[in-house]
Amino acid sequence: MKKLINSPENVVAEALAGMAAAHADLLRVHTDPNYIVRADVKAKPKVGLVSGGGSGHEPLHGGFVGLGMLDAAVPGAVFTSPTPDQIEAATRAVDAGQGILHIVKNYTGDVMNFELAAELAKADGLQVESVVIDDDVAVKDSTWTAGRRGVATTVLAEKITGAATEAGASLIEARDICRKVAAQGRSMGVALTSCTVPHAGKPMFELPEDEIELGVGIHGEPGRERIKLRPADELAELLLQPIISDLPYQRGDEVLLFINGLGGTPLIELYVLYRKAAEIAAAAGLKVTRHLIGNYITSLEMAGASITLLKLDDQLTRLWDAPVKTPALRWGL
Amino acid sequence: MKKLINSPENVVAEALAGMAAAHADLLRVHTDPNYIVRADVKAKPKVGLVSGGGSGHEPLHGGFVGLGMLDAAVPGAVFTSPTPDQIEAATRAVDAGQGILHIVKNYTGDVMNFELAAELAKADGLQVESVVIDDDVAVKDSTWTAGRRGVATTVLAEKITGAATEAGASLIEARDICRKVAAQGRSMGVALTSCTVPHAGKPMFELPEDEIELGVGIHGEPGRERIKLRPADELAELLLQPIISDLPYQRGDEVLLFINGLGGTPLIELYVLYRKAAEIAAAAGLKVTRHLIGNYITSLEMAGASITLLKLDDQLTRLWDAPVKTPALRWGL
Repeated sequence: MKKLINSPENVVAEALAGMAAAHADLLRVHTDPNYIVRADVKAKPKVGLVSGGGSGHEPLHGGFVGLGMLDAAVPGAVFTSPTPDQIEAATRAVDAGQGILHIVKNYTGDVMNFELAAELAKADGLQVESVVIDDDVAVKDSTWTAGRRGVATTVLAEKITGAATEAGASLIEARDICRKVAAQGRSMGVALTSCTVPHAGKPMFELPEDEIELGVGIHGEPGRERIKLRPADELAELLLQPIISDLPYQRGDEVLLFINGLGGTPLIELYVLYRKAAEIAAAAGLKVTRHLIGNYITSLEMAGASITLLKLDDQLTRLWDAPVKTPALRWGL
Repeated sequence: MKKLINSPENVVAEALAGMAAAHADLLRVHTDPNYIVRADVKAKPKVGLVSGGGSGHEPLHGGFVGLGMLDAAVPGAVFTSPTPDQIEAATRAVDAGQGILHIVKNYTGDVMNFELAAELAKADGLQVESVVIDDDVAVKDSTWTAGRRGVATTVLAEKITGAATEAGASLIEARDICRKVAAQGRSMGVALTSCTVPHAGKPMFELPEDEIELGVGIHGEPGRERIKLRPADELAELLLQPIISDLPYQRGDEVLLFINGLGGTPLIELYVLYRKAAEIAAAAGLKVTRHLIGNYITSLEMAGASITLLKLDDQLTRLWDAPVKTPALRWGL
């Protein structure tokens, strides 16, 4: 296992220390339990927006803490759900009297632990609402998930809902906007290689040199099928058609097209994929009015990519365009 | 070879088409010859800032075209210098009557072709100045380079000089600022794995499972030595000490600390490295007042990272902080 780490036990703590050292203007890192909050947390009365999940998907979630996006992120061990006490502590830390919204990716451990944390916080009088993201059209039920997995739409939900809470949305308004994003976003990914969790020390799965995993999960969960490596244009079709047919999108719909790298794929390849995905979307009558291209929700060093479509409307577009200032996503500020 | 491409012959053209489709608000892609210019090129009289080099280092250079950074980028084939006619065409395309500055990474082919292009443009009456970046302290002379190689300081030079030209600096002023960045930036990198150029179809070099290349170049050029894999903290020392001792930096100096991923290394590991690098810099009496962390000058899917220190002063800090709006670097707009 070749990694730029000191030891598997310390990788998350040391990465958090690196984030704290680099981004003191934007965030604070709390240890024992681990969570990240905005440097200006509770500076104004607003709904607190909290997300989290296993580490290894960086910049998700810690890289999205800051103005116009998350108030707190809760990192678990690599590919491991954060504990209820971590989530509860983060929830309390961002409580500015307007309630707290949890954005949860649909994995059984995450859902259970966020629910437990919400119950604990509610028992103490806090208002907590939750939205579960389950946008992965690849498979119904998976290794660690009942129902669809939650993947890249989470990034879009955090941005859009964060803009809403920044602008003063109520807890119920923010929850409903986040639900709309969850309802209107669909994703699917493909792995060209596996990845190695530090404490495991060996690849999550084996892929022959000429095969790829179509519909892979972000923890290396099996997808729809193993197929022979195809040209990028064919893969764009294989990823996008299940997305387009699922929602279903209507001709004339405005969409955000998100090409996400899984960690080990060069940016030049993501642009090759974007080119074809934009063509396919246009051929389906969709208007790509916004986009995001890069490594935003990753699987350590896995080579591969996912495609996400989010159906937009004026409200979602305006919230997407709103200023954001986080380590990993920034504009307008 | 597992890549998200259609064919090795078309990867650069298709990635450029993807950039054109995604970033029509920021840039225009010209083909035959290939170059990228700002969408608002020549909208105001300013010095034109042009850089370029082989593809495969994305987002460098095309991802840095836009307001406050480059006016044009000239992409060659993967790991291959752009041709003089490409560079000349880009130079003409950004000529707004105030002269053109070329920022050139120190590789023999790049230097020669930028020089030829500058001569052609000057023969037609254009004013052209050039600054060569040679910040890599790893080795003196290398596979494709006389003298030191040009690496990650190039990103900082493009940002800072771009801010200066945006603010109305003259050609000579912009050249001198760029020279200052070149003189005050130092870098060194380490490769954990090799990478595969699409048209070659096999890795640039072989690295045993327990060895790394200390001082690697961004095209896989040999570095100082092959050593056994070490903990990240030791690697941070091995990369930073040659940098700190080279300039030399003085105690009390303000610096920008840049941790650059080479393409295949997860962000979580870059933060582990940042943590230790910031500690080492502080122990040397340096004040890290600015930073950059992420994949900005890459070697396709190579796993590894480079560390860069740039000595700052008030002028460079102000120009670094100035607004920038490009596909890969954006703040304030």
